[in-house]
Amino acid sequence: MNLRNLNSPNADVRMKGFLTRTTVDDAWAWIGSTLPAGSRNSIEVISLKDAAGRILAEDIISEVNVPGFNRSMMDGYALRAEETYGATSYNALAFNIIGTSLPGQPFTGIVTLGSAVRIMTGAPMPDGATAVLPVEGTEIQNDMMLAMSEVSIGKHVGVIGEDVAVGARILTAGRTLRPQDLGVLSSIGRGTIPVIKRPLVRILITGNELLPAGTSPEGFQIADANGPMLYSLVNRDGGIADMPPLIHDNRDQLQAAMLEPADVILVSGGSSVGEEDHAPQILAQHGTLAIHGIAMRPGSPAGMGILNGAFVFLLPGNPVSCLCAYDFFAGRVIRALGGRNENWPYRRITATLTRRIVSTVGRVDYARVKLDGTAAEPIAVSGASVLSSTTQADGFMIIPANSEGFAANSTVDVFCYD
Amino acid sequence: MNLRNLNSPNADVRMKGFLTRTTVDDAWAWIGSTLPAGSRNSIEVISLKDAAGRILAEDIISEVNVPGFNRSMMDGYALRAEETYGATSYNALAFNIIGTSLPGQPFTGIVTLGSAVRIMTGAPMPDGATAVLPVEGTEIQNDMMLAMSEVSIGKHVGVIGEDVAVGARILTAGRTLRPQDLGVLSSIGRGTIPVIKRPLVRILITGNELLPAGTSPEGFQIADANGPMLYSLVNRDGGIADMPPLIHDNRDQLQAAMLEPADVILVSGGSSVGEEDHAPQILAQHGTLAIHGIAMRPGSPAGMGILNGAFVFLLPGNPVSCLCAYDFFAGRVIRALGGRNENWPYRRITATLTRRIVSTVGRVDYARVKLDGTAAEPIAVSGASVLSSTTQADGFMIIPANSEGFAANSTVDVFCYD
Repeated sequence: MNLRNLNSPNADVRMKGFLTRTTVDDAWAWIGSTLPAGSRNSIEVISLKDAAGRILAEDIISEVNVPGFNRSMMDGYALRAEETYGATSYNALAFNIIGTSLPGQPFTGIVTLGSAVRIMTGAPMPDGATAVLPVEGTEIQNDMMLAMSEVSIGKHVGVIGEDVAVGARILTAGRTLRPQDLGVLSSIGRGTIPVIKRPLVRILITGNELLPAGTSPEGFQIADANGPMLYSLVNRDGGIADMPPLIHDNRDQLQAAMLEPADVILVSGGSSVGEEDHAPQILAQHGTLAIHGIAMRPGSPAGMGILNGAFVFLLPGNPVSCLCAYDFFAGRVIRALGGRNENWPYRRITATLTRRIVSTVGRVDYARVKLDGTAAEPIAVSGASVLSSTTQADGFMIIPANSEGFAANSTVDVFCYD
Repeated sequence: MNLRNLNSPNADVRMKGFLTRTTVDDAWAWIGSTLPAGSRNSIEVISLKDAAGRILAEDIISEVNVPGFNRSMMDGYALRAEETYGATSYNALAFNIIGTSLPGQPFTGIVTLGSAVRIMTGAPMPDGATAVLPVEGTEIQNDMMLAMSEVSIGKHVGVIGEDVAVGARILTAGRTLRPQDLGVLSSIGRGTIPVIKRPLVRILITGNELLPAGTSPEGFQIADANGPMLYSLVNRDGGIADMPPLIHDNRDQLQAAMLEPADVILVSGGSSVGEEDHAPQILAQHGTLAIHGIAMRPGSPAGMGILNGAFVFLLPGNPVSCLCAYDFFAGRVIRALGGRNENWPYRRITATLTRRIVSTVGRVDYARVKLDGTAAEPIAVSGASVLSSTTQADGFMIIPANSEGFAANSTVDVFCYD
């Protein structure tokens, strides 16, 4: 890293390449030490309905019993259990039907000897009854209910607080809320839920050669690929993506956009050490360019730092480099700021390499592979610009800095893109 | 199944229990034979930016080359490769710098003998140049570039169509679009993408005992748990959830809501065979009640059929039964209608049971387990209403109909909720 030279007007150093490169481990260590443990996890309160997949910000203690009353778990007859003892289809015992208990509409009398209350699943148990005889074990004859099987005390009765008891801690802070969690939260009367705020991520796409995403490429211009890709990566990682229109290589415009408040700023393109690479210079001048140039392939011109309290990631314009640098560093920070697990968000499988894959010691490689079951075939690609290699691939493997690669038939870990 | 009796005014059969239950396999077979293979996968065209996670509806063939021109893959100097042969730091070779090629701003002259063009990553290769000498292998002296290493022909040049060639099929129909896919689609000029329409799923929550989701339970009323749970399950499975306010046990109102157009209708509550269970009756009267009562626990009062061309699922009001019946049947159909993989959307792991788990032959059991690494401990629960069992659980296992359960230390498959 040579911050001093970055702003030098001397033509000698305008385009100089990286003198040294930071290791991936050191970059992760910088992230780890810079991420303020939990303190940036701001909280917001949102509607229950929208809370699935969000990160719970506080422990949830129930203030109520669920259910708040004893209730039937079956359609049948509420009665005194001991009065059914001995009942079979050959020895039917008769009960007077003295009323009905429906969900939300309890029977208000008392179940006395020889009587039963017709009851539906979920309906309150009437006083005096100690069990529910399911309808399948009964018959109706002359307005009497004939019990043809027996039930023990408490059978088919859901008791107060059976699902959730007052004072129970039903969910703990940090949990990713599941559909059934919303059900339980709803059942204890929570209409709103405190969750970790999604970090605001500004995506700045730079490059004079770029046409807006989805425009047909023409002449010496190419269509922006990184914008739509980063936008959906940020969404995947729980960030709120804010993506203004393309910024052509205009230092003032880029600087203004980088200084707008955000939690994370991604700058795609112009991340290297050339004269036209404004972003590192802006970051060094107005904030901290902590790391610039990383011992990895692709993605080596990536950089990172802090500006106005925001994490800034300088992502190479080459799409595979951009994806790689995002996934190694930026995505990790976005997930952490949102209270999520910062580790790789990909399913990891153990696979067998179909052929040798070589790497250079001192550099981490991000190698795309195709999978056929657990056979992993490295995809040969010539350059970091071949984004289609990541669509043809089923996943990627990481070749550590201390490795020269892997022999054919090696067992390797593959992260699956799906 | 006894459709005839369902609408009988005879008190004898008003609350009768299920006479027979359909097996889970037969219910799946009915779904399989009723799902019209692909034909319900309507297509819509959406903005590229919103396409992540959606299902591509058509093969995508590129009409352009990406890149559309030869370009530099490094910051450095475009020159004639053979002129660098023999260059080292002890034998620097001098070149005239005759111009600059920047991304989107090509050098328009020709690179002749002894000359070089300063070039940035992504910039068009000037005519006459055959390679790029990276800046790290050069020095500047008296306005001349000194080459101190050699490059071979084609080195550091990305050629026309290297990423995507005209006519290449870059993605095939049915693919779940990944972030990098959006990048490639953007780079070939696709601003809009044909995807499978998300099925419209109406969620009807019934029950006189219910208060709206998130309301504090009171007296003999409980707060609706199933609405928020189903809403997020439908979203997870790619459906568009339409959830009108609670429907209290009013047959006309329920019937009107069930007859509104949709792809899938979920009715929670009143799914059984009691007098107040309107939904099965409406379905039998106005459509087809194909299956009612399933040999599973929980979830046995579930049913399904077709109404107005929509799949209708009758889900028990008990929250765990509701979750279980949704996941076994409804979710599967919603995913299939949206062009997604209809199989379990849960990560599956192999685990070892910590203790015996028993089941009844002839019935499929949905058993919640806690995981400690790969040790799976069954959660003992008394009833289908204990939704908190699914929040305490880390996943579930399915005990097949032909099984009496599993002994302690058995190896079992567990589906993880996370």
